[in-house]
Amino acid sequence: MSEDDTARHNAKMRKIKEARDRMMATKTEEKGLIMVHTGKGKGKSSSGFGMIMRCIAHDMPCAVVQFIKGTWVTGEAELLRNRFPEECRFFISGEGFTWETQDRERDVAAARRGWEIAKAQIRDPDIRFVLLDEINIALRYDYLDIDEVVDFLLAAKPAMTHVCLTGRNAKPELIEAADLVTEMTLVKHPFRDGIKAQQGVEF
Amino acid sequence: MSEDDTARHNAKMRKIKEARDRMMATKTEEKGLIMVHTGKGKGKSSSGFGMIMRCIAHDMPCAVVQFIKGTWVTGEAELLRNRFPEECRFFISGEGFTWETQDRERDVAAARRGWEIAKAQIRDPDIRFVLLDEINIALRYDYLDIDEVVDFLLAAKPAMTHVCLTGRNAKPELIEAADLVTEMTLVKHPFRDGIKAQQGVEF
Repeated sequence: MSEDDTARHNAKMRKIKEARDRMMATKTEEKGLIMVHTGKGKGKSSSGFGMIMRCIAHDMPCAVVQFIKGTWVTGEAELLRNRFPEECRFFISGEGFTWETQDRERDVAAARRGWEIAKAQIRDPDIRFVLLDEINIALRYDYLDIDEVVDFLLAAKPAMTHVCLTGRNAKPELIEAADLVTEMTLVKHPFRDGIKAQQGVEF
Repeated sequence: MSEDDTARHNAKMRKIKEARDRMMATKTEEKGLIMVHTGKGKGKSSSGFGMIMRCIAHDMPCAVVQFIKGTWVTGEAELLRNRFPEECRFFISGEGFTWETQDRERDVAAARRGWEIAKAQIRDPDIRFVLLDEINIALRYDYLDIDEVVDFLLAAKPAMTHVCLTGRNAKPELIEAADLVTEMTLVKHPFRDGIKAQQGVEF
């Protein structure tokens, strides 16, 4: 790159920086966020667990309620329970995907137990971040009532507490109530080529 | 829900389970994946770090090369360096966003240093997962040559090693070469309402 090009590049970058600084200066508020990770792509749960890592690093007490338990032992569950039992409370309320258990009544009961735990953790003034992993599955099949969940989040969540809800097919009511919504979109997936779920990637 | 409805629900779920079991039985291969997290939404880096947690939990040695260093100290960097120095190698090659440094030559040099480290980690037979965090920014501004990066991944990456590359604006060449691509799509973001970046959420 020539000296001229470098100068042009640096000038452009300076302009971007100035615009960004002006924009960020208007962002002065803090609040506890309702966050939703949905869509068919990867990364909904893993980015929730990535935020849990950030909380642990910043000494922010946090909690995870897992609404669905897969057939494999997940690494994140193992790591949190073995290495960070003080920093992060970890609960599993589901008993496997619905198509594993084949028992609606049991799934509804498990989801309700999970939701009771979730409410207690969200209300707890010591807890600053709550991850409700795969709760959208329980909401989608109406194991939990969407209005009850949204009403609770809007009315009873302490102002500074963050709550992150993950899972495909997030209901419109939840998206409407949320502050931050990300859709993980599948662009390409190796299952299509016969590659199975692998340690470290999917679990 | 009536008994009839419950029976219908269970029958439907059984059918889904059977179809899923048939589908998953065809997924028998394992291979090291080239994964890309891109898009404007949240979760690109945090889900990369979530996978790092999974690797640590499964005793899979892993490495992180961070190509861009923000103005804040990230929780994930702190946690990995303080708590998991044996399990995960951690490198920072960038020196802040380009619009912070305002110096193209320095940014190019930092990106090149990061890429040399990345290649060594990917080639290392002991390492099973390498996260190249925000490398897409370096590729986008041509601090690194996309062809060189893609050629290396396709030709020199050990067959079973996973590599995850994150950052907005992934180049088409990288998407073409990848096995798994997820686009994080911004549906709603609180910055729009004047909420600033917050601990535990963004860093």
